[in-house]
Amino acid sequence: MFYKRNHGPIPVLENYSLFRLKVGGLAPNHCSLSMDEIKQLPKHTVVATLQCAGNRRTAMSLSRKVKGVGWDISALGNGVWSGARLSDVLNMVGIPNYTKVSSCGGKHVEFVSVDKCKEENGGPYKGSIPLLQATSPDADVILAYEMNGEELNRDHGYPLRVVVPGVIGARSVKWLKSIDIIAEECQGFFMQKDYKMFPPSVTWDNINWGSRRPLMDFPIQCAICRPEDGAYLEEGSKVTVQGYALSGGGRGIERIDVSVDGGKTWIEAKLGQGLKSGHGYIPDDDDHRDKWAWVLWELSVQISSPTDILAKAVDSAANVQPESVESIWNLRGVLNNSWHKI
Amino acid sequence: MFYKRNHGPIPVLENYSLFRLKVGGLAPNHCSLSMDEIKQLPKHTVVATLQCAGNRRTAMSLSRKVKGVGWDISALGNGVWSGARLSDVLNMVGIPNYTKVSSCGGKHVEFVSVDKCKEENGGPYKGSIPLLQATSPDADVILAYEMNGEELNRDHGYPLRVVVPGVIGARSVKWLKSIDIIAEECQGFFMQKDYKMFPPSVTWDNINWGSRRPLMDFPIQCAICRPEDGAYLEEGSKVTVQGYALSGGGRGIERIDVSVDGGKTWIEAKLGQGLKSGHGYIPDDDDHRDKWAWVLWELSVQISSPTDILAKAVDSAANVQPESVESIWNLRGVLNNSWHKI
Repeated sequence: MFYKRNHGPIPVLENYSLFRLKVGGLAPNHCSLSMDEIKQLPKHTVVATLQCAGNRRTAMSLSRKVKGVGWDISALGNGVWSGARLSDVLNMVGIPNYTKVSSCGGKHVEFVSVDKCKEENGGPYKGSIPLLQATSPDADVILAYEMNGEELNRDHGYPLRVVVPGVIGARSVKWLKSIDIIAEECQGFFMQKDYKMFPPSVTWDNINWGSRRPLMDFPIQCAICRPEDGAYLEEGSKVTVQGYALSGGGRGIERIDVSVDGGKTWIEAKLGQGLKSGHGYIPDDDDHRDKWAWVLWELSVQISSPTDILAKAVDSAANVQPESVESIWNLRGVLNNSWHKI
Repeated sequence: MFYKRNHGPIPVLENYSLFRLKVGGLAPNHCSLSMDEIKQLPKHTVVATLQCAGNRRTAMSLSRKVKGVGWDISALGNGVWSGARLSDVLNMVGIPNYTKVSSCGGKHVEFVSVDKCKEENGGPYKGSIPLLQATSPDADVILAYEMNGEELNRDHGYPLRVVVPGVIGARSVKWLKSIDIIAEECQGFFMQKDYKMFPPSVTWDNINWGSRRPLMDFPIQCAICRPEDGAYLEEGSKVTVQGYALSGGGRGIERIDVSVDGGKTWIEAKLGQGLKSGHGYIPDDDDHRDKWAWVLWELSVQISSPTDILAKAVDSAANVQPESVESIWNLRGVLNNSWHKI
């Protein structure tokens, strides 16, 4: 049930025992690691939601046509990821934790896949993150070889993928072949000519890709999963409304507001998944589960039918979702986090 | 011109030479530092905007009455702050950089003022931040003794105040007397019974203060400073619209959209202050000035009069401002970051 997105055909690893991850570039040392060597590093597990920047794109296209693969509310998934910490691997090439600039002038960490993409003229998919994030153990960036307690499968990047929590899925490069420490951010197509957000006034005729930063952290997001849009509900019946909420950059979920009367009145939903439910907040001093994982929520409520049900969330930095999709419309249809309505 | 906010009378320091900052609690060592000793530590300068959580409260009250000091759009100010890094001071009591939990079980750092507040029954104003933030040099938390190149004055915390960039002003405690490493977050009035955000449905009759986290990072914010609301502008004249934009948690400003026709069409403003103006983004790999400081922006445009001028900003995590104040209304009137309209 976990969404799948790739820009080139899914590669087949010919011989697992010959696999080696190359780590090089602007680092004091270089190295090449077999899967066995990677598995000998301390195993770190992170519960993190990966979300495609195109999640909920279809709804944005209803307002005005956008370009991109159509997704409803499910271009995301929550997983238990295990692997080596990227910071531990970077220590092996002489870069200590919490480094902003390496002694050789490196400021970014580039991840290169083994796949072949049309947009890269047959070259591999790639992306980068800042070196400080890569070397901060608290950012929980891992080189994952397990997903939900099982060996990573081909669709999700076997034998090795990056998981960058709190950041759009495009940076969690699958089928990882090499890691390069570089001076400037990755110049690949998917960093520089895609996955950027433009104002509504920018069209395919006046677009200037160089004018924007690559998307990294995603904003506060929330969607209703049950009931489904258009479902038949008996007048006056009690319904359990359920959904997910998440925010990027390690920000937690403060609350979710649900309306069953089209937005006139709002009721706070209960948080599930081991979080304190209802009116109990998650103390900031623990690594609360909503740091990187979605929060599932629900609300049992009597409803009139037909009606519009809406949901919107607030994150721990008090960021809220925009009411309408028009104000955030952009030609690539990325990051639609407007109030979800069914 | 920098806003001033204090909860007790502004204290007078009797004898500067006798001042000592006490640092203790759950740390391996304790210490007490004179101002001379604090000034012998490496001097660190941060350009940071402090913003009261009540900024733009007056406009929220127009929608429905809230409780709190009325502020228009100026309950914030940008300053050049110099002082000792908090992380360096914590090193002196045996807590290394990037510590989440001290060896003695400390998880938060509490700042205690010398002032006396009614709400604390005559006790001092206080607040806390997580130990990890306090010990991360990249979070740029400083004990400031200079503001804009001059000795800190009484109104702003002489002789010593905390500056916590990216966080609501209430945590940047003035007239600092002591720092305590503590296990749980500070239990003071202004952490636990104030400066929290509730849903619109919560009233003074059903409020449960324990149900919410204390406010820390502020959300994306933007306001028009010129022209002033209600100013007379000649029909068809060219006007320079100017304002500020800022976001919390180290997030930068991606863009500012301005409308001079009541929200029907939007034009992107130019960024000032040494940032690349117009369509040029600030590379992520440098400590861009908008990490902690506001961004000043402007747009020269011909306008019809009378008209409504609006402004809204987007931050580097793609967070946007809410269109209306109704959806974020809360009884304490905190964090009004709805679209600014004049």
